[in-house]
Amino acid sequence: MGRLTGGDPSLLRRINSAVVLHALRGAQTPTLTELVHSTGLSRPTVEGVIEGLTESRLVVEVAPEPGDARRQGRPARRFRFHAEAGHLLGIEIGAHRVRAVISDLGGQVLDSLGLDVAESAGADDRIERVRTVVADLLRKTGVARSTLWAVGVGSPGIVEANGEVRLGTALPGWTGLPLGERLQRSFRCPVLVENDANVAAVAEHWKGAAVGTDDVVFVLAGLSPGAGSLIGGRLHRGFGGAAGEIGALHLLGRGVTPEHLLSTTGTPLHPLDEPAVARVFALAKEGDVQAKDAVERFLQRLVHDVAALVLAIDPELVVIGGWAAGLDGVLDPLRSELARYCLRPPNVVLSALGQEAIATGALRLALDHVEEQLFAIEQTSLSRL
Amino acid sequence: MGRLTGGDPSLLRRINSAVVLHALRGAQTPTLTELVHSTGLSRPTVEGVIEGLTESRLVVEVAPEPGDARRQGRPARRFRFHAEAGHLLGIEIGAHRVRAVISDLGGQVLDSLGLDVAESAGADDRIERVRTVVADLLRKTGVARSTLWAVGVGSPGIVEANGEVRLGTALPGWTGLPLGERLQRSFRCPVLVENDANVAAVAEHWKGAAVGTDDVVFVLAGLSPGAGSLIGGRLHRGFGGAAGEIGALHLLGRGVTPEHLLSTTGTPLHPLDEPAVARVFALAKEGDVQAKDAVERFLQRLVHDVAALVLAIDPELVVIGGWAAGLDGVLDPLRSELARYCLRPPNVVLSALGQEAIATGALRLALDHVEEQLFAIEQTSLSRL
Repeated sequence: MGRLTGGDPSLLRRINSAVVLHALRGAQTPTLTELVHSTGLSRPTVEGVIEGLTESRLVVEVAPEPGDARRQGRPARRFRFHAEAGHLLGIEIGAHRVRAVISDLGGQVLDSLGLDVAESAGADDRIERVRTVVADLLRKTGVARSTLWAVGVGSPGIVEANGEVRLGTALPGWTGLPLGERLQRSFRCPVLVENDANVAAVAEHWKGAAVGTDDVVFVLAGLSPGAGSLIGGRLHRGFGGAAGEIGALHLLGRGVTPEHLLSTTGTPLHPLDEPAVARVFALAKEGDVQAKDAVERFLQRLVHDVAALVLAIDPELVVIGGWAAGLDGVLDPLRSELARYCLRPPNVVLSALGQEAIATGALRLALDHVEEQLFAIEQTSLSRL
Repeated sequence: MGRLTGGDPSLLRRINSAVVLHALRGAQTPTLTELVHSTGLSRPTVEGVIEGLTESRLVVEVAPEPGDARRQGRPARRFRFHAEAGHLLGIEIGAHRVRAVISDLGGQVLDSLGLDVAESAGADDRIERVRTVVADLLRKTGVARSTLWAVGVGSPGIVEANGEVRLGTALPGWTGLPLGERLQRSFRCPVLVENDANVAAVAEHWKGAAVGTDDVVFVLAGLSPGAGSLIGGRLHRGFGGAAGEIGALHLLGRGVTPEHLLSTTGTPLHPLDEPAVARVFALAKEGDVQAKDAVERFLQRLVHDVAALVLAIDPELVVIGGWAAGLDGVLDPLRSELARYCLRPPNVVLSALGQEAIATGALRLALDHVEEQLFAIEQTSLSRL
């Protein structure tokens, strides 16, 4: 516990700036008087803050509105948050593709771009592919690299806080890769790396199927599912960043690998061979008995994994994403089995963001970082108490 | 976001009181001067606060220490937190017994008492047994009921925030029971009810095997295990209070009930028949083949349940408690299997509190409630910002 004494004038200025910026984002194009009312600060304070924010290009003055003419003299000046002052990137690194999305400082998406990458590509080639998609997207949107404020990255594997991939068996050469450090070389702004299922959970909470729901498990459903969880609206990474890596559960005392689950021939499917899996589902739909059995085994495993997550964490909502979310007949068995076995069954829905979930969540990571700097100063300062 | 304007003098007084109380608890018997230094408050402020706290019996003056004599005049006055000004109760309600532990306002345990209760006892009889153990403990310690500041209760089942048991199949008549309300009739202070595994997790973190470890899963290991989790040092209840109720995982698509797992005859064991289970373990130790198989099945299930919790939550530490923790050969298979299948295996240890864990955790719940009132005022006030 600290002391509630004295005062730090520069801290106070930063708090006032954050308060005014926050008010500016909450309103459309407020006048000085409206800002004085919404912030509770004095008029000279607001004027001083606006001046400083204008100098640092975070605030711009806008044209007066039609009804703004005062009885006497000039109309009241109006201001807005200058979201175009900087940009943010969200990057997905996957087994078959890399993807980037770009937004302004307010998180408004400008554009996105994806590139295929060979499943067998090594770490250097995959990272090179990331650099290419970023360069292409910047060129396409005409955004200067120097205006980037933060870059978020979603990657398979267990990712350390320093951006190193502790364990990543899904991609060749990924385990032990200092991914954050490697990508950092392309940017002058902070690069934040996080597990793909984790950022997808963040994305669905931001603008997908979990908006307004703070206790969510997002399942990246595939041959070996991973999951990301929000608890009380905050990402739950786990002590070592491995929370939700439920894939190993079925290996315990059984030895049935996921690649065997969906095989109709006894020969295991390649874990990342999504088209082959989709073919098995299509065959099952046509009535093929072996394919139906394989799909049944796959669904049983998915139900079991999701049930384990639900029983451990007790979320309000489960969002099913990843490629398996695109297959028919995934949702119903999940709902009925969870309702049967969970003491408090959660709602179960499909991802609303689909293929965009991971890059979008990575973008949100970058946005969180910037907002922390711009708007959350009061929290930082108060936590000193 | 609020405003950093104005000032609330009564709020300031409360903050100052909390700061002084906190400093008093951190030191042994500080002098006024020492309190002025440790709090950063002015001498008149500290004097005023001490006067108020003395009037409300939360602070008492103690005799000066040998070296306290000043060069001139009287020795400096010394004070201490008056922990005896009130008392707290922690109550465990179990299948075979009820238990109560009593402490002072500082959480210092004075005494505890347990009573057997029939497994078949209905809710009324079980609650009556709780009232008896509390009355006996108060009599034994000479503590007046009117000095109780808060009562914590640990019970099996999913417990709602209002103290109602949403689902509690372990005890007859427990589901739907307004447990908090029923117990409240015996007390004039707040009664807080929580799931037994949850409070046991809190207890191990407070004074057991998880001291200093903020990311913990506590497993109440029995025929049907339950678990409580701390995430970042805080109890994770889940959206509906059902987090950690992992017992149903093995029913999924199998139909093997826990009662069959440890049976050596094909006839299911009663789920709460702990002596029968202990006999199976003893037989296995003597080399009985059927008993060894049963124990193996039991351990496999425990490993699987704990693995599910660990993969979902990724704790730093797993604490194994409950009656199964007292059986030989539980810890080693857990450690080796978790190390094999978890991407980041946690430490696994036995409960340090054993039979005291649930009542102790319930006591900590009561203590948390009181500390929130006494010492955490600054957090309450700052969260308004």
